[in-house]
Amino acid sequence: MEANRTAPPQAAQRVDLDALRNSFSGRLITDPGDLEAFTVDWRRRYFGRAFGAAQPDSVEGVAAIVQWCARNRVVVVPQGGNTGLSGGATPDESGRSIVLSLARLAKVRAVDTINNSITVEAGCTLAQVHEAARRAGRLFPLSLPSEGTCTIGGNLATNAGGAAVLRYGNTRELCLGVEVVTAEGRIWNGLRGLRKDNTGYDLRDLFIGSEGTLGVITAATMKLYPLPAAQVTAMAAVQDPHAALRLLELAQSMLGSTLTAFELISNLCIELVMQHFPDHRRPFAEAAPYYVLLETSDSESEAHANAQFEALMERAIESDIVLDAVVATSGAQSRALWELRELISEAQALAGKNVKHDVSVPISSIGDFVEQTNEAMQRAFPGIRMVVFGHLGDGNLHYNVSPPAERSGREHEEEFLALQPEMNRLVHDAVVSFHGSISAEHGLGQLRRDESARYKSDVEMALMRQVKQALDPLGIMNPGKVLPPQPPQPVPGSGG
Amino acid sequence: MEANRTAPPQAAQRVDLDALRNSFSGRLITDPGDLEAFTVDWRRRYFGRAFGAAQPDSVEGVAAIVQWCARNRVVVVPQGGNTGLSGGATPDESGRSIVLSLARLAKVRAVDTINNSITVEAGCTLAQVHEAARRAGRLFPLSLPSEGTCTIGGNLATNAGGAAVLRYGNTRELCLGVEVVTAEGRIWNGLRGLRKDNTGYDLRDLFIGSEGTLGVITAATMKLYPLPAAQVTAMAAVQDPHAALRLLELAQSMLGSTLTAFELISNLCIELVMQHFPDHRRPFAEAAPYYVLLETSDSESEAHANAQFEALMERAIESDIVLDAVVATSGAQSRALWELRELISEAQALAGKNVKHDVSVPISSIGDFVEQTNEAMQRAFPGIRMVVFGHLGDGNLHYNVSPPAERSGREHEEEFLALQPEMNRLVHDAVVSFHGSISAEHGLGQLRRDESARYKSDVEMALMRQVKQALDPLGIMNPGKVLPPQPPQPVPGSGG
Repeated sequence: MEANRTAPPQAAQRVDLDALRNSFSGRLITDPGDLEAFTVDWRRRYFGRAFGAAQPDSVEGVAAIVQWCARNRVVVVPQGGNTGLSGGATPDESGRSIVLSLARLAKVRAVDTINNSITVEAGCTLAQVHEAARRAGRLFPLSLPSEGTCTIGGNLATNAGGAAVLRYGNTRELCLGVEVVTAEGRIWNGLRGLRKDNTGYDLRDLFIGSEGTLGVITAATMKLYPLPAAQVTAMAAVQDPHAALRLLELAQSMLGSTLTAFELISNLCIELVMQHFPDHRRPFAEAAPYYVLLETSDSESEAHANAQFEALMERAIESDIVLDAVVATSGAQSRALWELRELISEAQALAGKNVKHDVSVPISSIGDFVEQTNEAMQRAFPGIRMVVFGHLGDGNLHYNVSPPAERSGREHEEEFLALQPEMNRLVHDAVVSFHGSISAEHGLGQLRRDESARYKSDVEMALMRQVKQALDPLGIMNPGKVLPPQPPQPVPGSGG
Repeated sequence: MEANRTAPPQAAQRVDLDALRNSFSGRLITDPGDLEAFTVDWRRRYFGRAFGAAQPDSVEGVAAIVQWCARNRVVVVPQGGNTGLSGGATPDESGRSIVLSLARLAKVRAVDTINNSITVEAGCTLAQVHEAARRAGRLFPLSLPSEGTCTIGGNLATNAGGAAVLRYGNTRELCLGVEVVTAEGRIWNGLRGLRKDNTGYDLRDLFIGSEGTLGVITAATMKLYPLPAAQVTAMAAVQDPHAALRLLELAQSMLGSTLTAFELISNLCIELVMQHFPDHRRPFAEAAPYYVLLETSDSESEAHANAQFEALMERAIESDIVLDAVVATSGAQSRALWELRELISEAQALAGKNVKHDVSVPISSIGDFVEQTNEAMQRAFPGIRMVVFGHLGDGNLHYNVSPPAERSGREHEEEFLALQPEMNRLVHDAVVSFHGSISAEHGLGQLRRDESARYKSDVEMALMRQVKQALDPLGIMNPGKVLPPQPPQPVPGSGG
């Protein structure tokens, strides 16, 4: 695979770019200065090259581009809002790729309030989908911090998670049907708005989460929900993740499916937020080791939601599950509680470089996982600080690591980051020993590709390769993402 | 494919059955009398043949059997409870198949009440899974009339639907992970109990719903839910399916996700039940053209559920959406209302032969679909009676047809059934014109295989064939189901 990265881009120069330009309506960007926006990821971790970025404005255009790429054995790297965290939408350094940007394919095709569905093109931003749903009096529940920039096509390609998975599922579970341009450049219209359809293989879910390596999702029919009458937020202080789990069980039993978020936050997270955003207030006068942020979406009323929360917290305090609790009594209070959660990543970034993990384990194992892995990390890297938070209700933790406080200056950064592979290995080994996932909601892209291959069984890797080979026999669809690269296929008639 | 069916079974005689018998622990049934239970479907519509039925008692046994079949190019027909409605688990008539019965693989491997998951082997009956969940204080929501006989492996292989899909989804949505024996006879342990895992292609959902044509599901980790505090049933009388849709929208807005069932029943269904089960009472003194059966699962209390239903029905009557409504005030009343729904199929069978359709359309199209298709059916087949009922909340109707009342005797049966292909064509053409599915929850099997291929695009058929070819290159996994058959692969070294 390294050979591929360092190969000279001459092969690319030989292709007929004019034929590509004439094959679709939209933009073809080839100016190196303009290309950077497409070839470097937003966190500036991956610096790829490409000999062009194509922005078609129709599905037929997407098909024409992929056909041209297939004919010329040119690699296609599909890209949405370029907000991915694993380098899945960044081309390699060979300069022999075309970035296929879906940004101009951004129409809301249809909203159906009785079927509770919306059909949108891949380039629609998540915020655009939210807005179209709201205008129709409906909720589209996928909730991500990057909603103004990320696209629904990217959300589908990576099966994005977010803060409302507990109730509504991942992007996969919100999708009823997809339209796909195959690796041959054919258009498959699988835009079904059906809740039940048992007529063959589940191709939809094969393309979802495949990070553009099997085909290009160009549009999707997504589920909508009635707008809740009220959304209420509460926070509880708990001793440890074990107590948080007992609260989760109680909340699910008392609140049923009105419970829409259940987030764990360690005290260090709150400390970091307080340090870097001093305008914010602590949720409780007395600090606790951990906090839980809960949200309900109630179809009755705010009063009902509040009464439900009060009853829950009363029971939880009586049973010594929580140390203290607060229920937001206004939208402003709710927002303030959510901001504490949402500022953690930024606060941690302001505090200096850190090492991130996006892991999941069975929910019942979270307590043991955190306890045992925290201990092992302290033994291996004395003094490091664990910045633990995440979607406890889904078993998903952002299990991040900051350097010891006394070694958090710029001058220690390199020394700390040098430990990253060792830290990843320790954390991921622990995750796998708990039957968990080393990439819960961020996908594999380039970042976790080899690490994932290391943990998966030979049987699973073989099945994945068989699927890839079947749907993309030429290996032109975003190679080197998800699966470790395969040798390229020869151009027919080119003698090699 | 017909060639395959009429070919003599000599090829099968040449295989070394002793080697098969010695390759696994469990039963190998070869006595023709004992085999019939495995080679004929329970409705006695499909009469297949096989030279054996293997009942392994371990996953390793399943793998050994599939390996033997792969070596000998013998067809494997996986079978659960043999309760399918589309002939998906019945071998063809060539006698060259092995039925692989999962019945002895029936252990509950693990229940995790905090993770809300249960791991069960494929041969567990649905009732067994319900019981294990209930004993742990949890709900497993999949609800099918055949629960005492059907197996979870069969439910997964066909992605079964049922009466609780509105809230909990199909079997697919209830599954977190699967264990599969591949067409090569390798064991893939994909038994993840995770809510979030984005590490590669969604192999799980590829095997689910593939009716044993890509591999054999041997175990699964399924979702559990808290037991609701109360389940309450109500029935409303409405003028037509359009009014039922308005009630659905109102109910979803007022009851949110506590609404767990929303079933449509035409008056003729109730008339048939009254005629054949005269002990049952009509739900309303005055007959209405259609009825809706609703159920809520409430996490608070029966009183709360009742109050919610009362408020809904009051609004619905005020808004002229419903003509009349009744809320069950006891478990016995609830059961009586459900029995009306559940007796429809039996009542229709007692009334004589009928033609069944299991279709879905976008929920918003149900009113127009029923209205227009009823009219077209009357024009084409004057006097026929439409027995329309089903899971309106999922857009899924059992759109069945009975002969005219004056021609419903035995002596007219053949004449009526001769019209079946023509009726299927008319109904399915209508379904497809509404962007619906011709098999919503019963799968394709043999019954709808060719009909489905007729309606699907070339692109989709090609994608499905590519997947089949990739995962089962020898074509030994339940060929002739889901996809029209392909020519068989030669045995290597056999010269043919």
